[in-house]
Amino acid sequence: MRNVIHYNSWENKAPFGAIKVNQGVRIAVRTNEEYDVLNIKWVILKEDNVVGHIDLVEENRNYYQGEFNGFNETGLYFYYFEVDVNINGSYQKIFYGKSFEDGHTIEYSYENLNKYQITVHEDFEVPSWYKEGIMYNIFVDRFNNGNRNKKPSNPKPNSFIYGNWSDIPMYIKDKDGEIIRWDFYGGNLKGIIEKLPYLSKIGVTIIYLNPIFESSSNHKYNTGDYKKIDPMFGDEEILKELIDKASKRGINIILDGVFNHTGADSKYFNKFGNYDEVGAYQSEDSKYRPWYNFEGSKDNYKCWWGIKDLPNVNELNESYMDYIIYDVDSVINKWTGMGIKGWRLDVADELPTKFIKELRKELKNNDSDSVLIGEVWEDASNKISYGERRNYFVGDQLDSVMAYPFRNNIVSFLKGQITSNQLRNKFMTLKENYPKESFKSNLNIISSHDITRIKTELNYDNEMVKLAVATQMTFEGIPYIYYGDEAGLSGGTDPDNRRTYPWKNEDEDMIEFYKDSINTRKKYNALTNGDTDFIINNDDDIFGYIRFNDNGEKILVLINRSTEDKNINISLEENTLEVIDIKYSSKKYLEIISKNNDSFNLQIRPKSFNIFNVLNLVEV
Amino acid sequence: MRNVIHYNSWENKAPFGAIKVNQGVRIAVRTNEEYDVLNIKWVILKEDNVVGHIDLVEENRNYYQGEFNGFNETGLYFYYFEVDVNINGSYQKIFYGKSFEDGHTIEYSYENLNKYQITVHEDFEVPSWYKEGIMYNIFVDRFNNGNRNKKPSNPKPNSFIYGNWSDIPMYIKDKDGEIIRWDFYGGNLKGIIEKLPYLSKIGVTIIYLNPIFESSSNHKYNTGDYKKIDPMFGDEEILKELIDKASKRGINIILDGVFNHTGADSKYFNKFGNYDEVGAYQSEDSKYRPWYNFEGSKDNYKCWWGIKDLPNVNELNESYMDYIIYDVDSVINKWTGMGIKGWRLDVADELPTKFIKELRKELKNNDSDSVLIGEVWEDASNKISYGERRNYFVGDQLDSVMAYPFRNNIVSFLKGQITSNQLRNKFMTLKENYPKESFKSNLNIISSHDITRIKTELNYDNEMVKLAVATQMTFEGIPYIYYGDEAGLSGGTDPDNRRTYPWKNEDEDMIEFYKDSINTRKKYNALTNGDTDFIINNDDDIFGYIRFNDNGEKILVLINRSTEDKNINISLEENTLEVIDIKYSSKKYLEIISKNNDSFNLQIRPKSFNIFNVLNLVEV
Repeated sequence: MRNVIHYNSWENKAPFGAIKVNQGVRIAVRTNEEYDVLNIKWVILKEDNVVGHIDLVEENRNYYQGEFNGFNETGLYFYYFEVDVNINGSYQKIFYGKSFEDGHTIEYSYENLNKYQITVHEDFEVPSWYKEGIMYNIFVDRFNNGNRNKKPSNPKPNSFIYGNWSDIPMYIKDKDGEIIRWDFYGGNLKGIIEKLPYLSKIGVTIIYLNPIFESSSNHKYNTGDYKKIDPMFGDEEILKELIDKASKRGINIILDGVFNHTGADSKYFNKFGNYDEVGAYQSEDSKYRPWYNFEGSKDNYKCWWGIKDLPNVNELNESYMDYIIYDVDSVINKWTGMGIKGWRLDVADELPTKFIKELRKELKNNDSDSVLIGEVWEDASNKISYGERRNYFVGDQLDSVMAYPFRNNIVSFLKGQITSNQLRNKFMTLKENYPKESFKSNLNIISSHDITRIKTELNYDNEMVKLAVATQMTFEGIPYIYYGDEAGLSGGTDPDNRRTYPWKNEDEDMIEFYKDSINTRKKYNALTNGDTDFIINNDDDIFGYIRFNDNGEKILVLINRSTEDKNINISLEENTLEVIDIKYSSKKYLEIISKNNDSFNLQIRPKSFNIFNVLNLVEV
Repeated sequence: MRNVIHYNSWENKAPFGAIKVNQGVRIAVRTNEEYDVLNIKWVILKEDNVVGHIDLVEENRNYYQGEFNGFNETGLYFYYFEVDVNINGSYQKIFYGKSFEDGHTIEYSYENLNKYQITVHEDFEVPSWYKEGIMYNIFVDRFNNGNRNKKPSNPKPNSFIYGNWSDIPMYIKDKDGEIIRWDFYGGNLKGIIEKLPYLSKIGVTIIYLNPIFESSSNHKYNTGDYKKIDPMFGDEEILKELIDKASKRGINIILDGVFNHTGADSKYFNKFGNYDEVGAYQSEDSKYRPWYNFEGSKDNYKCWWGIKDLPNVNELNESYMDYIIYDVDSVINKWTGMGIKGWRLDVADELPTKFIKELRKELKNNDSDSVLIGEVWEDASNKISYGERRNYFVGDQLDSVMAYPFRNNIVSFLKGQITSNQLRNKFMTLKENYPKESFKSNLNIISSHDITRIKTELNYDNEMVKLAVATQMTFEGIPYIYYGDEAGLSGGTDPDNRRTYPWKNEDEDMIEFYKDSINTRKKYNALTNGDTDFIINNDDDIFGYIRFNDNGEKILVLINRSTEDKNINISLEENTLEVIDIKYSSKKYLEIISKNNDSFNLQIRPKSFNIFNVLNLVEV
């Protein structure tokens, strides 16, 4: 590796990160004085097509600059450097791209170039109720039964109800491992209404419900009827009551839209004849037949990941798009009309781009204040799925995605698998690739119905869990609470992660911790809505960042993952630190060893975090 | 085969069948005049020991007689004949034993002799409330939930409740086929109390409950605590209420005694630590340790048919016998004291003879009117189990057994697998081997919780089911109704045969049929309590018998299993026939083609039965 040039996109590019369409970008490159550089070319591509070929200008000795104003379309742009340099007496071309670790540039062969990314997007704004909110995700069957007698409403034919609310969930399978009966606890919408005061108290402002439409299963990802509330969960009247009562408490409701497939046991496919209408499975003449893909026999149909219970739909089929999107009483219009404030799109990367765009258009026409969220498991800015680049963030698709990378990064750090600087770099990469508005709208998950709960993932170590929660509650992006996590619920992969909320058996200490850390987030605009500077430090175990806003508010967060006391020196120039107190946190263990005008020497206790309000001395 | 002698134990032996101890037996044998017979020896054995060696006396030409009075012990005696006969000029010994088909004698080699059996028993009497009763067997979880809100009481930890009373039962197994969770519907003792008027109305006088003691399963054959009612079923107060309210309606309650093994999850074994006391599994110092057989480690213990959940007990262990039998508050004494009128011993043939005898003694001391019933699947008179002859019927053991042979015989006939005469012969063999009192007390099963329900067994053909029921209700022995059969319930092997009673969805026609056929049984003492003569006829499809009593009452039953009209001629000497009407039966299809003083010519419709009161003309 020859360090002929020095460049770091996190420092030497203006503006930082993603840009709006037609915005210009300036960069600065230094050359290593040991080398004789003839020329530096800044090569810019829109996807695979070169759109710019800029010779950088040497402004000062070893200091080159360039500017490009041709980002005139939304989408992903990439760039790299082509350097002509004198090596042993002759000029050679050397290629520089992005390190996989951080923003630095390193040498690559042309074939293996890892290019820098610039996401170019329309000007878009995510509704502030959403991006400044606190989300609570409810798997309805498992949260609360609001019936007076606690009996599940309208059990499905040939289904099982757990003997006790506290029973451990399991799948009921046949000898081939196929689920043969569905298991329910009986949670319902009434149960959520009953617990709105509780959710308010801990600070929730958004409730995202896993699917609630009629379906044979407990998870309801195999939709039976998109226009009907599952009778075990309630009916339209009860949903309306939930929406209204939640709204009075400043809580918005978001639904799960499962539009990639239906259930085989549905009004549309009707494999088992449980519905009155003629289903696609039953007859070639069914009006739903074109929604699905049959090959030869009726039993040979395309389905999601080979699961026969989930026949895939042709999302772009005209009648399907009418039904879901365009009709006056389409699925989207029906529920949005009732007051639903947004949709989480299940398996968004398996939905055609056009479908997402059209759905967004209809949704925003209907209610410009509503949001569209995607289930995406990776960096959503540059996701390629089925060979197609998904430009979720260019402004006409998703407002937000489920931030599984957030969870992976935090867990890797807390478990000692990566250092604090590696963690910083991972977050910086996301921050660089995501439009500002998208990064602020990231749904910061630490548990979900599809992964191991954070408590189990962190070996039931509540101190470590609190570090994850503290990070989540002070980070850029929306904290996503998976029901029960706040009450100390544990659980491995599904169905174990879908245990019931432990009413009357809650971890009260943890609830108070959630409550107070959410309060803190809300109290400081820099936490709710500010930007982020990550701290670089030499201690692998200390992760830190400053959240700041335009009004000069600055909040410093420091996290010590280790089992040892850690000394850290914070240089603050004209500022001073004020400790922010979070109940039931490890605050009390902090020790300020010494301070003077421009630096604090702190000792942070093992497995603890500290939050500081950074105050300008002059103003104090 | 050389027919040198002719003998039929059903005709040529006096008295017929089993005898009381010290009663004498006379037999008569005819010889075939084609043979030159020198001598006939009647060899009598007690089990394997020869106790009599009688040379029969030729009273008339070719007509021999003999008498033996040495039946001076209870138990099984056997006999055969040794005939000296001139074959081709020299005398040979030929051995005659019992045909496997009927009472006739046939030639055997000495080694293969099938001997005749004489059961010799004490004089004993089975309580008349029992032998004249109508039994209804209830699998409690599946019969009726008597709670006002229909919620199951006290569900077990980590168990399942069926979503609907009408759901189809299933086992919840892991991939190795082991049951991992128990499934319940929530039937309970209150539910039985609620339905006592119903049971009264159909004519039930005995309720036999499958196990009701605390246990983790729905069937409760894995007892957890012999002295506690399972909390899902109720408590002692409710049982007392059931006993009292049933008693007021003339209904007695019988319990299931499962004394061959306990549950692993029990107060005694306590494998899972669910009980407070130190269990045998937990410690060598447990007072229950000697009840069980451990070899080496605590996980290596003897269990029933290798099922780890059912550790076998040493029934003859002193402390176990005290606990179950002798203690003032022993299991038997506790519940008998509360008013329980009898016990059905689970897997009776795996209980030591001494245990059964002692249990009977204690039971009868306590309440001489109570009964002891055994689960035996074969001819119970000569059962050999684990190399030991079980003399259930000699007067000091069982009052009654579950008559699985009754069911097998009737089903074989109705399905066309055997002829009417073969059926007659099977019943004659049982009648011959069983003491009179035992045959009258036979529990005539057509369904149970361990076998396919009669309706399913007979391919849902209600006409055929009615033939089975009509036989059961007019036969010698106690009709045993497995809950729900009367309401048209179907079901294959377990757990399918344990579906719930179909409240509000009953087959009312079938209920009326049961009711009326039970009424008929009760109306005619010859049916309730009479003896039986089986009719021999030439039509394989017509099975018939006459029930008669000492007062000259005679009831004739004729069953046509075929799908064709059948003509039958009944010779009646000085009698006449009066049709007995059973509602919803096929009575209306009977046609009396002609009659005269001594015979009736009847046409019986396909798959139908007819019952006649045989009246003496002179008295009419």
